[in-house]
Amino acid sequence: MPPLIYVTRRAHFSAAHRLFNPSFSDQENDAVFDKCANPHGHGHNYYVEVTVAGSADPRTGYVIDLKRLKAIIEEHFIAHVDHKHLNLDVAFMHGVIPTAENIAVACWNQLEPHIGQGRLFSVRLYETENNFAEYKGAHT
Amino acid sequence: MPPLIYVTRRAHFSAAHRLFNPSFSDQENDAVFDKCANPHGHGHNYYVEVTVAGSADPRTGYVIDLKRLKAIIEEHFIAHVDHKHLNLDVAFMHGVIPTAENIAVACWNQLEPHIGQGRLFSVRLYETENNFAEYKGAHT
Amino acid sequence: MPPLIYVTRRAHFSAAHRLFNPSFSDQENDAVFDKCANPHGHGHNYYVEVTVAGSADPRTGYVIDLKRLKAIIEEHFIAHVDHKHLNLDVAFMHGVIPTAENIAVACWNQLEPHIGQGRLFSVRLYETENNFAEYKGAHT
Amino acid sequence: MPPLIYVTRRAHFSAAHRLFNPSFSDQENDAVFDKCANPHGHGHNYYVEVTVAGSADPRTGYVIDLKRLKAIIEEHFIAHVDHKHLNLDVAFMHGVIPTAENIAVACWNQLEPHIGQGRLFSVRLYETENNFAEYKGAHT
Amino acid sequence: MPPLIYVTRRAHFSAAHRLFNPSFSDQENDAVFDKCANPHGHGHNYYVEVTVAGSADPRTGYVIDLKRLKAIIEEHFIAHVDHKHLNLDVAFMHGVIPTAENIAVACWNQLEPHIGQGRLFSVRLYETENNFAEYKGAHT
Amino acid sequence: MPPLIYVTRRAHFSAAHRLFNPSFSDQENDAVFDKCANPHGHGHNYYVEVTVAGSADPRTGYVIDLKRLKAIIEEHFIAHVDHKHLNLDVAFMHGVIPTAENIAVACWNQLEPHIGQGRLFSVRLYETENNFAEYKGAHT
Repeated sequence: MPPLIYVTRRAHFSAAHRLFNPSFSDQENDAVFDKCANPHGHGHNYYVEVTVAGSADPRTGYVIDLKRLKAIIEEHFIAHVDHKHLNLDVAFMHGVIPTAENIAVACWNQLEPHIGQGRLFSVRLYETENNFAEYKGAHT
Repeated sequence: MPPLIYVTRRAHFSAAHRLFNPSFSDQENDAVFDKCANPHGHGHNYYVEVTVAGSADPRTGYVIDLKRLKAIIEEHFIAHVDHKHLNLDVAFMHGVIPTAENIAVACWNQLEPHIGQGRLFSVRLYETENNFAEYKGAHT
Repeated sequence: MPPLIYVTRRAHFSAAHRLFNPSFSDQENDAVFDKCANPHGHGHNYYVEVTVAGSADPRTGYVIDLKRLKAIIEEHFIAHVDHKHLNLDVAFMHGVIPTAENIAVACWNQLEPHIGQGRLFSVRLYETENNFAEYKGAHT
Repeated sequence: MPPLIYVTRRAHFSAAHRLFNPSFSDQENDAVFDKCANPHGHGHNYYVEVTVAGSADPRTGYVIDLKRLKAIIEEHFIAHVDHKHLNLDVAFMHGVIPTAENIAVACWNQLEPHIGQGRLFSVRLYETENNFAEYKGAHT
Repeated sequence: MPPLIYVTRRAHFSAAHRLFNPSFSDQENDAVFDKCANPHGHGHNYYVEVTVAGSADPRTGYVIDLKRLKAIIEEHFIAHVDHKHLNLDVAFMHGVIPTAENIAVACWNQLEPHIGQGRLFSVRLYETENNFAEYKGAHT
Repeated sequence: MPPLIYVTRRAHFSAAHRLFNPSFSDQENDAVFDKCANPHGHGHNYYVEVTVAGSADPRTGYVIDLKRLKAIIEEHFIAHVDHKHLNLDVAFMHGVIPTAENIAVACWNQLEPHIGQGRLFSVRLYETENNFAEYKGAHT
């Protein structure tokens, strides 16, 4: 078997979100989520790094054409979340608390069926320069 | 007169905003502000660079103590905007379209009366890595 | 007169270039340009920061709509230089040694006639994280 | 066995390259490599992160002296590719399509015989801020 | 078992250090540690990335509340090393050569008993933009 | 007169320093400099951006050859401060409190006599990502 190479494409989106659990009282939400529970929300410049593992096609030198990976990320994830409110505007986030953890998992689930060349290896979601979450699928 | 030195302190906040003019029709808002007019808003990790010009105090080597400048920025600006919705939660932004330009001017107006040592020289506001606005006061 | 605000849009391109003066001997080119004179060229990820000065339109909060500035930069500069060899593929660089200085001036000349709102204030061209050149027009 | 520590040294080079397969027709090259197939090439500021795994020598606190790792990377990789055209000037890239994937593998092969302390664990090659490839050797 | 998610919090400290082994002669210290052995020390802006692995709590969406992780890092590591001399001021570094490797291990040992939610997965310590060390515990 | 272009070279050094005024009491030093007065010092990864203004030489496209500017910065500034304690090891800092302001002025004074092509326009000294000082000479 040819050795694995891991290729990563980074993409960006700007979004608003609010961290709260509708089954919590206001006091519980404030205790757990603090200023992230602000009712009108706040927002971030998010970066997502999507990594695909596979062997390089000897005819192209590509594990996956990064232009194609960019297009998959754009169509199935960025177009749904960029310049949106993650709690209110995004079908695949309905009923999900939009923490970095849950956004990373949602991004994985959006992208995984469409990769085709190689296999999706990880999704890393940066909420700020200081906070990020990474997901490598259900089998890890 | 001793020569000028320019010292800068950078601070960070995460906020939601929506660009729209309430006196515009929805169509006008969409034409002008495009995806930034999304009704539920979106958000950013903002960085602000606040520059004070003055001469260095020979006893301390400071134009202005950056710990004090940090505290002024925190008290009079960051505490009002961090983890907030700029259109809905911020008294000094009421009636102002929260573009990078207008946030930079508002930040200047919030900070300028409190500097004390040296004089406020510029406020630079980064909305993303690719977009920023700078304001140097009304006399420039 | 309303106070000036300076808004900046950053754009990116990847290009090859070679520094040499065809009127120099090979030895002179090597002495002046050293490894930058490599005959087959080398390349960079360039970043350009384009700053427009003006007052904010009270109806929009914009000095210039950054989406429009982005489109001007794309059409009149990036489309001509991205994924190109600056010495061989770019009409407005013919006969110009593609130093950071000269690329910044060429970018200014390409953009200046198209700004329309506010006035072009500066073009800053990053060749690497450690090298950049800035041009503010012929009148400075 | 003492626990593993992973130490990484980052290095930089500027190079030109062209993505194309000489056995493809021009149309095929354009279809696969798009603007990366520009005949005169384009270029990048590449960053490479080289990671060595091992245990810390109790007398020095080093897995591998990073000054020595820096020198190995410089002698066996950077000196061959910096300010070069990867398709035309680099012996160990002859006949290889210089994708991020293939450059990462070539870097691994250049460095691996020279590490000596610890073992080479990964080579990560950044082509831009948005694209990178990582290789961990043939046994993974 | 629910799938693992890896959440990371980055923190910063500024510190002085000197690399030398008191059982070495001055000549040996200079040969091994070169300019890092300067008797009065030098310093860095260090960044540490602390990663915790676990499953997301369905009620909060958190593997570990990053505010709590931030507080643990602050109390048990940053407060001891920020604006300190690592050789002279830090109890848990006594007798340890403060290389990036050894600081990463010391940080792990300081934090590991306090995590509580999920398990500590890795500590990555950046000494500069070009040098970093990562530790994943004694069992790897 | 040909128009001005501003070229900048960035350089890096790692150093220790301590902020204190020997004519102050310990209490005064603690009150003014807080944790920066730690007796054993702390340290930073400093970045300095040196800008030279001039017109481009039509034969080279250079305001100043950045390789020469790099060498001037290295010889007259970096070699004196890198991996040093700024209070104890640096002749041109003796008797100077090593604030960002004073380091920027000292760097200017070290470099200004050696520029030769164009004129030194500014020295910007980054102490951290959040703190920097800029000096443009005594005539501003």
